[in-house]
Amino acid sequence: MKKAVVLLSGGLDSTTTLYLAKKQGYSCQALIFDYGQRHKRELKSAVAVAKRAKVAYQIIKISLPWKGSSLLDKKSKIPERKILKGIPSTYVPARNLIFLSFALSYAEAIGAKTIFIGANAIDFSGYPDCRPSFYKAFQKVIKTGTKAKKIKVKTPLIYLTKAQIVALGKKLKAPLEMTWSCYKGGKRPCGVCDSCKLRDAAIAQFSGKR
Amino acid sequence: MKKAVVLLSGGLDSTTTLYLAKKQGYSCQALIFDYGQRHKRELKSAVAVAKRAKVAYQIIKISLPWKGSSLLDKKSKIPERKILKGIPSTYVPARNLIFLSFALSYAEAIGAKTIFIGANAIDFSGYPDCRPSFYKAFQKVIKTGTKAKKIKVKTPLIYLTKAQIVALGKKLKAPLEMTWSCYKGGKRPCGVCDSCKLRDAAIAQFSGKR
Repeated sequence: MKKAVVLLSGGLDSTTTLYLAKKQGYSCQALIFDYGQRHKRELKSAVAVAKRAKVAYQIIKISLPWKGSSLLDKKSKIPERKILKGIPSTYVPARNLIFLSFALSYAEAIGAKTIFIGANAIDFSGYPDCRPSFYKAFQKVIKTGTKAKKIKVKTPLIYLTKAQIVALGKKLKAPLEMTWSCYKGGKRPCGVCDSCKLRDAAIAQFSGKR
Repeated sequence: MKKAVVLLSGGLDSTTTLYLAKKQGYSCQALIFDYGQRHKRELKSAVAVAKRAKVAYQIIKISLPWKGSSLLDKKSKIPERKILKGIPSTYVPARNLIFLSFALSYAEAIGAKTIFIGANAIDFSGYPDCRPSFYKAFQKVIKTGTKAKKIKVKTPLIYLTKAQIVALGKKLKAPLEMTWSCYKGGKRPCGVCDSCKLRDAAIAQFSGKR
């Protein structure tokens, strides 16, 4: 069975991606990152999703002992933007790059030829490391900087809208109700942060379509 | 004063690179990685060098909970090759990429425009992540995947021979005697591993020239 490493955050996108990879016949190894995000709620979701999907998972603990993002720094305010334009304060410098680098190391070590990441360039929040050009550049890094050379990073959701992702997740029977998107770590999603807003709009749109 | 992030392993190359960056007028922040390498001896050297150089440093602890390198796995044998050809078992998949990704995150967070790494493509041990093509590809990743876009990775030693690096280090008054190159973690360098061999040959060549 062909192996794949799947980055799993516990959100809608990565959960749908995991189920898509499974559907495509991959034996998946999930990587979950505990990177000092301001709440641990999404980690719980990630572990629950991995268990439900019956895939092996590893939690990688890393520290980014520098500030520079409201997603790391509990003292700074999570943005509640009306129009999602530009790069928000929740941007964590080089975050997806760090995650991908670990995934690449892991993939090479276990002989996996594929890495899945649920990056999305349409209904995304303005993060540069969600853009196709970044993944294209990263592919070149793999080719030049590793022994394996031919590991492929797949971003199957990159051109989908959030509503399309919800639809795909539902179709794949991904447990979307177990996922967590809210940037804040309350008992319930806040409903006003960028991430809640994108998720809620997508679910509303999906529900309206049915 | 212009800021730079410098990757510091505690070896000859990174120590020389740090002193070169200082000489070029950078205010340096050293990053030292505790990544589960089979011995901690080089970390000691890295910290000692940072202190001697009077630069701020941070030790980043990461775990790569997968095998696949004799540099991580204490049970596997460190190679003692006669001819240094091909990629040796000390290769750690995506190691320099992981280090660079953290350095990039740090640089972006503190507003540094430069990252220094002592990679060397001449008297290197066959690692793909020491080649110029890898650094060129990584530069594109910075351009496409970060907010800062214009951070530059400098590899000033990349085309130098090990003997030239020793000469440069001496010229810069870098404390080469404090550095550690041996892949094993004994009280004294083993003298037979690839890394010792390269270092010893370079020092012998340098001494012969004087």
